[in-house]
Amino acid sequence: MSDVISFARGAPSLDIIDVDGLKAAAARAFERDPGGATAYGTSIGYVPLRAYIAQQHGVEPEQVLVTNGSMQADAFLFNHLVSPGDPVVVEKPTYDRTLLNLRSHGADVRMVSLEHDGIDVEELRTLLQDGVKPALAHIIPNFQNPAGYTLSLAKRHALLELAGEHGFTIFEDDPYISIRFTGETLPRMLDLDEGAGRVIYASSFSKTVCPGIRVGYLVGPAEAINAVAKQATNTYISPNMVAQAIVHEFCVSGAIDRSIETVRAALSERVAALTTALREHLPDARYTAPEGGYFMWVELPEGTDVAAVFAAAAKHDVAFVKGTDFLLEGGENTLRLAYSGVPVGQIDEGVRRLAAAVADAA
Amino acid sequence: MSDVISFARGAPSLDIIDVDGLKAAAARAFERDPGGATAYGTSIGYVPLRAYIAQQHGVEPEQVLVTNGSMQADAFLFNHLVSPGDPVVVEKPTYDRTLLNLRSHGADVRMVSLEHDGIDVEELRTLLQDGVKPALAHIIPNFQNPAGYTLSLAKRHALLELAGEHGFTIFEDDPYISIRFTGETLPRMLDLDEGAGRVIYASSFSKTVCPGIRVGYLVGPAEAINAVAKQATNTYISPNMVAQAIVHEFCVSGAIDRSIETVRAALSERVAALTTALREHLPDARYTAPEGGYFMWVELPEGTDVAAVFAAAAKHDVAFVKGTDFLLEGGENTLRLAYSGVPVGQIDEGVRRLAAAVADAA
Repeated sequence: MSDVISFARGAPSLDIIDVDGLKAAAARAFERDPGGATAYGTSIGYVPLRAYIAQQHGVEPEQVLVTNGSMQADAFLFNHLVSPGDPVVVEKPTYDRTLLNLRSHGADVRMVSLEHDGIDVEELRTLLQDGVKPALAHIIPNFQNPAGYTLSLAKRHALLELAGEHGFTIFEDDPYISIRFTGETLPRMLDLDEGAGRVIYASSFSKTVCPGIRVGYLVGPAEAINAVAKQATNTYISPNMVAQAIVHEFCVSGAIDRSIETVRAALSERVAALTTALREHLPDARYTAPEGGYFMWVELPEGTDVAAVFAAAAKHDVAFVKGTDFLLEGGENTLRLAYSGVPVGQIDEGVRRLAAAVADAA
Repeated sequence: MSDVISFARGAPSLDIIDVDGLKAAAARAFERDPGGATAYGTSIGYVPLRAYIAQQHGVEPEQVLVTNGSMQADAFLFNHLVSPGDPVVVEKPTYDRTLLNLRSHGADVRMVSLEHDGIDVEELRTLLQDGVKPALAHIIPNFQNPAGYTLSLAKRHALLELAGEHGFTIFEDDPYISIRFTGETLPRMLDLDEGAGRVIYASSFSKTVCPGIRVGYLVGPAEAINAVAKQATNTYISPNMVAQAIVHEFCVSGAIDRSIETVRAALSERVAALTTALREHLPDARYTAPEGGYFMWVELPEGTDVAAVFAAAAKHDVAFVKGTDFLLEGGENTLRLAYSGVPVGQIDEGVRRLAAAVADAA
């Protein structure tokens, strides 16, 4: 039996990770700052990396907290901002782990439709006008997980206006921003906000360095960052200083820019291969080719039962995540393909197998 | 003005950390297992390190969870076992962060006196006979933080018996066990339990590799470990794989044994210098010289106000932690000296300054 081709996990394949660059960055981290890399430090993170991130975003270091991955940052932020019963707006569909975390916080999750240019702002406006007062709106603006769609500039402005009018925080969850392989990068809502305090921004080095390094961060008003830092102190004293010192060296040496170029080029090629293969093997599938990131959302013809396709896929040695996992209801004919982990040479074969699974399930 | 001599933080000084060994371990980790070190992995931790820890403890890998530091493991465990209002037994005095975490979990914290040979088992027995049903008893058996005392073998057996009779879990929190510089290592309660499931054990590589690496672990019944692993997945997907791969290489290469020898020798020398200096400069202070670990508990004469000493110490450029921080009440004439962070050549001067602060506060 052949190996499974997995479009399931949003993770990069090893061939697009700069392992030599990481090894060199680790050596420099221990040589140049042995004290900083090996000591506890504090919960705000490795000081030089915090300063680097602050500079990249044009903010003060007090507005930045570096964490053990951005999921951990999300968890701290939800603890800080969301009390049981609080309405929280998310995109429909959205990242399954965010959905799970919000529900385990007891949030009253309100899903608002995601269009090809981002969240349906009119649907959100109606919700707000109906009196829903969200604690926050969780938005993945670039190459959304799971859909791969990007929030338009007009909608970024509209969301900021709504946040100001209705007094909620926009949680701009943006791990994929650097992995754009076509089109122009749109300004962050964090930047468009111009310090008005309507946005807390999260990103990560998982997609630009590697996921195993587990370094993410938050940028926001100093007061919110300080509150989250206190929680972090009480949870783990400090995040991983060795890993953060390695990331810092990887960034300041310029290795990160080369790494991003490698990832962009490879993923662009994979999207091209994926759309070609879908046209050939699954001509009835509908999708929007993403301009960046890891994911593509695929709609199979109405009436397709994705659970049956999923079961059949296991027999055909191909994996994906069912669209229903990213929704509270509906999406029975949808699925997410993560092309980040599948080298280009395997994509056609993977889609062939997927088509065979769809045929089996029909 | 001279630099502050700090007996405050339970952290090693840089001179006893094997930075070159860490650098070499990092290079090997990226060379030998680039996929494992750089990928997400899962919440159970880096698989080869988990297997190594399981082997060291003579348990199955399913009984081990490797986390981002042992504080994070504590937090997960408290989430799993402690509901608001549950009684939890701790030592009096105990680690201030444990006290804080338990209180923030809403635990009904019951402090039981700590004697020079460990927790007062008769006092605990009375508490249990009075009908208190603790969710767990948190015990730091070796070179306790903050007291430096070690739990005797007889008391280890007595605690296990009480746990069996009264149906509570012993949380054996044991980060210092390897740092014994005199006397024989006593068996862990985890081992004395012989798989009866009365003990969940936590330890860490902070004291044997370095704190900035943030790698700790839990050992316990597979069912409890599995429940905690699920929480870990939902919190951060996976812990730091790069750091855990480095620790694994550091361990299997034998560097860890040399590192432990370095730490033991240095800390033994520091305790000798500390007791000599105390006899000379603070002859009224009472203490038990620890047989290992980082800390010594010091009782100043009755009536001494440690808050006043603390304030005076700042002026004399010496730092420590007040005994009152490790207690819910009392301890006004006590303090904790962490000698782990003070090179031997500074200890006499540090105690001189402390004596001057005590004199000022009198």
